[in-house]
Amino acid sequence: MDETFVVIGGDAAGMSAASKAKRDEPDLDVVVFEKGRWVSYGACGLPYYIKGEIQTLDELVSVPPEEFREERDIDLRTGHEVIGIDPDARTVTARSDDGETIQPYDHLLIATGAAAVDPSIDGIDLDGVYTLGSMTDGKELREFVARSRESSPSDQPDRGPACQYLENCSGPVGVVGGGYIGIEMAEALVANDFEVHLFQRDDRVLNGFSRATSEAVAEHLEEQSVSVYLNAEVESIGGSDAVEAVLTADERVPVEMVLLGTGVRPRTDLAENAGIELGPTGAIATDEYRETNVPNVYAAGDCAEAEHVVTGEPAYVPLALTANRHGRAIGQTVAGTPSEAGGIAGTAAVKAFEVEAARTGVVDHDEARDAGFDPVSKTIDAKSRAGYYPEGGTVRVTLTADRESGRVLGGSLVSEYGEGAVHRSHALVGAVTEAITVDELSNYDLAYAPPFNTTWDPILTAAKVLGGKL
Amino acid sequence: MDETFVVIGGDAAGMSAASKAKRDEPDLDVVVFEKGRWVSYGACGLPYYIKGEIQTLDELVSVPPEEFREERDIDLRTGHEVIGIDPDARTVTARSDDGETIQPYDHLLIATGAAAVDPSIDGIDLDGVYTLGSMTDGKELREFVARSRESSPSDQPDRGPACQYLENCSGPVGVVGGGYIGIEMAEALVANDFEVHLFQRDDRVLNGFSRATSEAVAEHLEEQSVSVYLNAEVESIGGSDAVEAVLTADERVPVEMVLLGTGVRPRTDLAENAGIELGPTGAIATDEYRETNVPNVYAAGDCAEAEHVVTGEPAYVPLALTANRHGRAIGQTVAGTPSEAGGIAGTAAVKAFEVEAARTGVVDHDEARDAGFDPVSKTIDAKSRAGYYPEGGTVRVTLTADRESGRVLGGSLVSEYGEGAVHRSHALVGAVTEAITVDELSNYDLAYAPPFNTTWDPILTAAKVLGGKL
Repeated sequence: MDETFVVIGGDAAGMSAASKAKRDEPDLDVVVFEKGRWVSYGACGLPYYIKGEIQTLDELVSVPPEEFREERDIDLRTGHEVIGIDPDARTVTARSDDGETIQPYDHLLIATGAAAVDPSIDGIDLDGVYTLGSMTDGKELREFVARSRESSPSDQPDRGPACQYLENCSGPVGVVGGGYIGIEMAEALVANDFEVHLFQRDDRVLNGFSRATSEAVAEHLEEQSVSVYLNAEVESIGGSDAVEAVLTADERVPVEMVLLGTGVRPRTDLAENAGIELGPTGAIATDEYRETNVPNVYAAGDCAEAEHVVTGEPAYVPLALTANRHGRAIGQTVAGTPSEAGGIAGTAAVKAFEVEAARTGVVDHDEARDAGFDPVSKTIDAKSRAGYYPEGGTVRVTLTADRESGRVLGGSLVSEYGEGAVHRSHALVGAVTEAITVDELSNYDLAYAPPFNTTWDPILTAAKVLGGKL
Repeated sequence: MDETFVVIGGDAAGMSAASKAKRDEPDLDVVVFEKGRWVSYGACGLPYYIKGEIQTLDELVSVPPEEFREERDIDLRTGHEVIGIDPDARTVTARSDDGETIQPYDHLLIATGAAAVDPSIDGIDLDGVYTLGSMTDGKELREFVARSRESSPSDQPDRGPACQYLENCSGPVGVVGGGYIGIEMAEALVANDFEVHLFQRDDRVLNGFSRATSEAVAEHLEEQSVSVYLNAEVESIGGSDAVEAVLTADERVPVEMVLLGTGVRPRTDLAENAGIELGPTGAIATDEYRETNVPNVYAAGDCAEAEHVVTGEPAYVPLALTANRHGRAIGQTVAGTPSEAGGIAGTAAVKAFEVEAARTGVVDHDEARDAGFDPVSKTIDAKSRAGYYPEGGTVRVTLTADRESGRVLGGSLVSEYGEGAVHRSHALVGAVTEAITVDELSNYDLAYAPPFNTTWDPILTAAKVLGGKL
């Protein structure tokens, strides 16, 4: 196969596709353009790097560039930004410190990722305003934390996390956004003794989860000394050179740093300029092979949408597994074995201090109704292990189903960290993907032993209880 | 509904059926005969009671008898042994201290459970030979442990579990059988400072699990100071009045106590005497409603077989969830809503000291071939959390699929305790029940975040790797 596969973007989707294509078809020339210097890195680990649980950024790199080049025989060109795609000529133009290159392709993958959304408010250019979209962002935040700790008079290695009990806290700092990044960063900052104020525009954190999950997480954040402001749209960030305060309609909260965790948007400029269609979500539209409207041009990862397994409609859920999975399928396809990449269920997980939460499928009733369902939900609190077992906590499960068919549409779970909300969500991913009913789910022969669950796992109890409501 | 529902046996299946029937149809008369004094108890918790983590047997009772009688309005007759069923007359005969009663029924549930299998060897009647089939057995074992601890010269509350490092151990004791009971009791006994010798007839512990799982568990047992003897059929128990040794073909191991964990057999005498058919497994045959060949006579729990979701054939897997689930479905049916009870996947979980293991579906190749499949298996070791995350261990996953169709037939997992082998098995229960392929499984949008897994959860990695072998 004397062909060339060009990949734009060297993170999860891009490197998965490049590696798989080359492994399956060694004769293929594989060229990857990455504008930065980092490739194949675990951005999801950045909050733990900033927290101090991971010591170097290199630890977040799953495969170093040399391994791609030398062992996998991939022509990986870091420091190369692609500035144009010409689908008619089948070329891309890349710019580096050495000038411009025109690279022909037979197959092209656009894996340009997503960019942090900056809210259009005053003050976001002040010193001390951070986002967390890149390895560089992570480095800067860690340096900020280190500086603050050094200057903090009560900096002692054995200090506890609960800042309000201490005489001298670092901070205060503001976190804008109550999604994963906001919550994980709140944990990282509290662990470094910052007084953390978290501002959420909506009336709850973790919007895509069930309200019951959101409430449990918000309550826990407060217990862990995070001040959570709900219905608190940030109107501006105050300060002259450096950040001094976060301002909402109601309050002016003095802070020394602001982290913006206000979501991401797909990077689609390159694709749009080349006439590649975007979908209804604003991300690049793809078919079940993740091919765009332009033949032999694929898109995957945080720049692309994909069909939702419950609604069948395009959805934009920029998360790591989808990028890896879709990249890998494209690699197989390009190497000669057309491979459907599978849809997305909108599954997500988050650790928030000492609780864990996960969600999958369609939980929100408006979203379910838009997709033609008649949603019914039920939330239960169940013991995470046998009642008599000496350890254990509570798993709160919200399950949503369609009234008429009984089909499981989605679920949301929260438990103490280690009590299994996240791993239990695996069962619900199968349920929503296979379109089974709550009755079928309630008859699943799930594993049981006292150290792991009650005889009826909380998943089964939720299915039983919701089944009784249909 | 002026009818009577009679239940024989007051544990999981019986009390689930009784409670559900009465709740759904309050006009139904529900009579339960239980020969012992305990009902609705969690026998699965007995090893933890013996271990000392649970302080009273009462804690294992999920619903006390008075609650069944007073709040649920069930005519629960403890101390009543049913000695005959007359399907023509639709009556059962029960015997108690007060004499015999003949009780008519419209619907009957046989939930007589299982009995521990005593191996037919010399010495099983010696003092110091125990089984663990009932609450009474549990009480006796706990008393044995307490006596031994009292007489042990080095009994100190802070003694560690690793007996070989101590000058004065209790014991030695022998555990015969390397299944759940044997392993859980080994943990309970080591925790009480006994020197434990575990004898397993086969060449590995946990027969129904994958060999890779069995080996990991056996290795861990040895690490925890349990002497594991494989291929070690016990030929006799030596001693004059009390136990003195366990004898195999190769060895004579001195012990002061023997626990027989050599499996259970269904209690079917009553059913057989009434002309109710047994199935190929030797347990009572039932249809999808758990009805026997005699109309209006049901069987559920440890005395009955049920269809396997993978093979479609009858299987005998006497475990707690099935008893609860099938009992509940029978209660619904009897109350007027015919309810299929769902098959069984042979799912099981066990904690062995600091590891956990689970299995589901068909893992064994002979069993798969008998069911008409062409089995292929693959075992992988994967990190339980992101590689860079400060905690975590290894999840070992064995997946078995059919070569031609790619269908997932079964799986077996083992990890450190708390690293999620058991809860992750929930995903595989869905996979085997819904008959999906390994490729479909590998495309599941499972939850991911660094504190819970790698981007590809070990389940997905196993599916990918096995998919590559088909």
